[in-house]
Amino acid sequence: MRCEVLAIGTELLLGQIVDTNGAWIGEQFAASGIDSYEHRVIGDNQARIVAALRDLFSRSDAVLVCGGLGPTQDDLTRDAIAELMGVPLVRHDDLAEQIARMFRARVRDMPQNNLRQADVPEGGAAIPNPIGTAPGLMCEIAGGKIVYAVPGVPYEMQQMVTDHVIPDLLRRSGEAAAIVSTSLKTWGTSESGLAEMIAHRLEALDEQGNPTIAFLARGIEGLVVRITAKGATESEARALVELEEKELRLILGDLVFGVDDETMEYAVLERLRGHGWTLGVAESLTGGLIGARIVNVPGASDTFRGTIGSYATDVKRSLLGVTAASVVSEDAAREMAEGAQRVLGADVGIAATGVAGPTEQDGVAVGTVYFGLALPGRPTEVVGTRLPGDRERLRQFSSISLLNLLRQRLDGLEA
Amino acid sequence: MRCEVLAIGTELLLGQIVDTNGAWIGEQFAASGIDSYEHRVIGDNQARIVAALRDLFSRSDAVLVCGGLGPTQDDLTRDAIAELMGVPLVRHDDLAEQIARMFRARVRDMPQNNLRQADVPEGGAAIPNPIGTAPGLMCEIAGGKIVYAVPGVPYEMQQMVTDHVIPDLLRRSGEAAAIVSTSLKTWGTSESGLAEMIAHRLEALDEQGNPTIAFLARGIEGLVVRITAKGATESEARALVELEEKELRLILGDLVFGVDDETMEYAVLERLRGHGWTLGVAESLTGGLIGARIVNVPGASDTFRGTIGSYATDVKRSLLGVTAASVVSEDAAREMAEGAQRVLGADVGIAATGVAGPTEQDGVAVGTVYFGLALPGRPTEVVGTRLPGDRERLRQFSSISLLNLLRQRLDGLEA
Repeated sequence: MRCEVLAIGTELLLGQIVDTNGAWIGEQFAASGIDSYEHRVIGDNQARIVAALRDLFSRSDAVLVCGGLGPTQDDLTRDAIAELMGVPLVRHDDLAEQIARMFRARVRDMPQNNLRQADVPEGGAAIPNPIGTAPGLMCEIAGGKIVYAVPGVPYEMQQMVTDHVIPDLLRRSGEAAAIVSTSLKTWGTSESGLAEMIAHRLEALDEQGNPTIAFLARGIEGLVVRITAKGATESEARALVELEEKELRLILGDLVFGVDDETMEYAVLERLRGHGWTLGVAESLTGGLIGARIVNVPGASDTFRGTIGSYATDVKRSLLGVTAASVVSEDAAREMAEGAQRVLGADVGIAATGVAGPTEQDGVAVGTVYFGLALPGRPTEVVGTRLPGDRERLRQFSSISLLNLLRQRLDGLEA
Repeated sequence: MRCEVLAIGTELLLGQIVDTNGAWIGEQFAASGIDSYEHRVIGDNQARIVAALRDLFSRSDAVLVCGGLGPTQDDLTRDAIAELMGVPLVRHDDLAEQIARMFRARVRDMPQNNLRQADVPEGGAAIPNPIGTAPGLMCEIAGGKIVYAVPGVPYEMQQMVTDHVIPDLLRRSGEAAAIVSTSLKTWGTSESGLAEMIAHRLEALDEQGNPTIAFLARGIEGLVVRITAKGATESEARALVELEEKELRLILGDLVFGVDDETMEYAVLERLRGHGWTLGVAESLTGGLIGARIVNVPGASDTFRGTIGSYATDVKRSLLGVTAASVVSEDAAREMAEGAQRVLGADVGIAATGVAGPTEQDGVAVGTVYFGLALPGRPTEVVGTRLPGDRERLRQFSSISLLNLLRQRLDGLEA
């Protein structure tokens, strides 16, 4: 099955918004075995939208249109699809009532324009929008081809594509009814390293064709190994995914820090909760970034005591009790981790000190970083490393490296 | 003048990379008065690239191709342009020598494939690449139309577009030779609010046509007002920009926190340096984010002492000396700001405490935030507010709000 993507919006062409929808849709399509040969962005101009649709349908059986479903005169996707089909727009009373109800619930007056969102090209169907006012569209055009339209708002678009567009495309392709996927989130090795480790699984799956494995790069956040299976039923597909997940976890071991939407900081807090331990952080080059990551996890307050961003040297000494001659050293990292434990009243103290640049500090080269880990009932551990990248990247890399080290140590204790 | 954009790369279609180039190019084109009716993404397939170019040239006089200039067999932009022109590729010895030199400088062996990057369609010209191995291309095709090709690597692309593509497009359009623009970065009002304030300037400029003003949204980072002027010479264009900048600054006053690439934290540190003051921060709901923003500024260490991310209530008490009954209150914000001053040995102490959710805390509603500002020789000030948004947005908004408050107070002192 193949489906092209057409984004509508002059603001996209003018660069006022970065289009992240295209990448998201591309990833979802790929995971579902749907090909896409072209993504296109067009401004708010009905003639150009219709021309683009005609051109795309000359080569493809399906097109997904994103955006242009709002209530204003600039929103022309509905009109363009009706023109393409050669039919009028028909107002759907049930949609109009839903839109009016949504405005009443928000205690806001509804501009009459908003009722345009209840218009559907004759013969087409609406895709329900549980979270916004603009319904989507699903319209067959001549020759059994299909055009979908979804809002440009990412979370509304994502829900419609996941719940309606992809299942409909798969039905049309005569493919299996259910697709299930799980993402194993890994940290600490390269894509080629991962590929080498699981080469025999990739080969075996290539032969059997289902499930499939894809690698997705997440930059500083690591690499995702996504397992996707098709099945006649959801439970059949899920069983295939779970079987393969077991195989891969055996091979990948503690490179895997979580699944799906789980972040590294979530993984760390979960493991700390398992031990009933609280966490305190001492930061230097990261300036507070490690703390900021941790409080991204809802409910962090039961485990996270706080962070001390001791940027100035004498703050490390007065507040954390660092006595080491150089504040970028193994000794300083150890004293900072223990200082975080003591000063923040935490069971576990972790610390990062290093040189983020732009120039070396006290003869220590840019990129040198020391991590300290103070866990209850164990001698404090220090790991030194030399990280690549610019100032910003060094700090991001230091933060996730330290969190990953702590995760691995906590997993080691459980074993 | 009009120029369409064609991005090449199967990895873009698969969503493995988010295409930020399109937005950047759109913004630059708009600032230079170059129209773009269409952005298109195509995979690494020569026939499809040629077909897309033919289609785009059926409606436009210029196309900018991004990507597909690498050394591998997948990189087909050069071949596609040669096919479009109906000419062979010709190896340019000077380019080959440059590429070989770049490899020698990095003490790396050069794969023979890399010499493909020295190939140019007969009759075309190379665009020099001072920072990478892949030169760009600038080739006239039939009918005086022009195709440019630049690498997909953002900073290489940006340099070529700025230095070569846009100047060439403007020359071809017979437009003024020089374009100068300045971006005034503002924080604290809406786009409609800004538009209302400068409505009479917008009208006046609409009539005279040069310079022009554009608004660019930067989300939590505020709104940018960009002034762009054309002139026969750069100094003529610059004079027009400077004149308008003066007018706008009179109207916008302290909404403007910086120009061009200056961030809010840069603005704050600059003003602190002017007073010879150091800064200490006490954070609660932001968990270290304010400190992390500040250390983004190279050279922050001369001014920034550190941050105390006091997430747990008893850490606020033991470390910062907070005695207020509720840790989300005016009194707590005051005590935290003064605690940051004292504990971090800083001239200026600032603090943010609030409820980020997901649930209310001690009867205080989600979104309630108090900011404390302790400046030398003044009573400590507290500002309370109620911010909108989810957990992440609340924290981002709190961080920049507090930095902006400090900037305004420091500006007030100078007046």
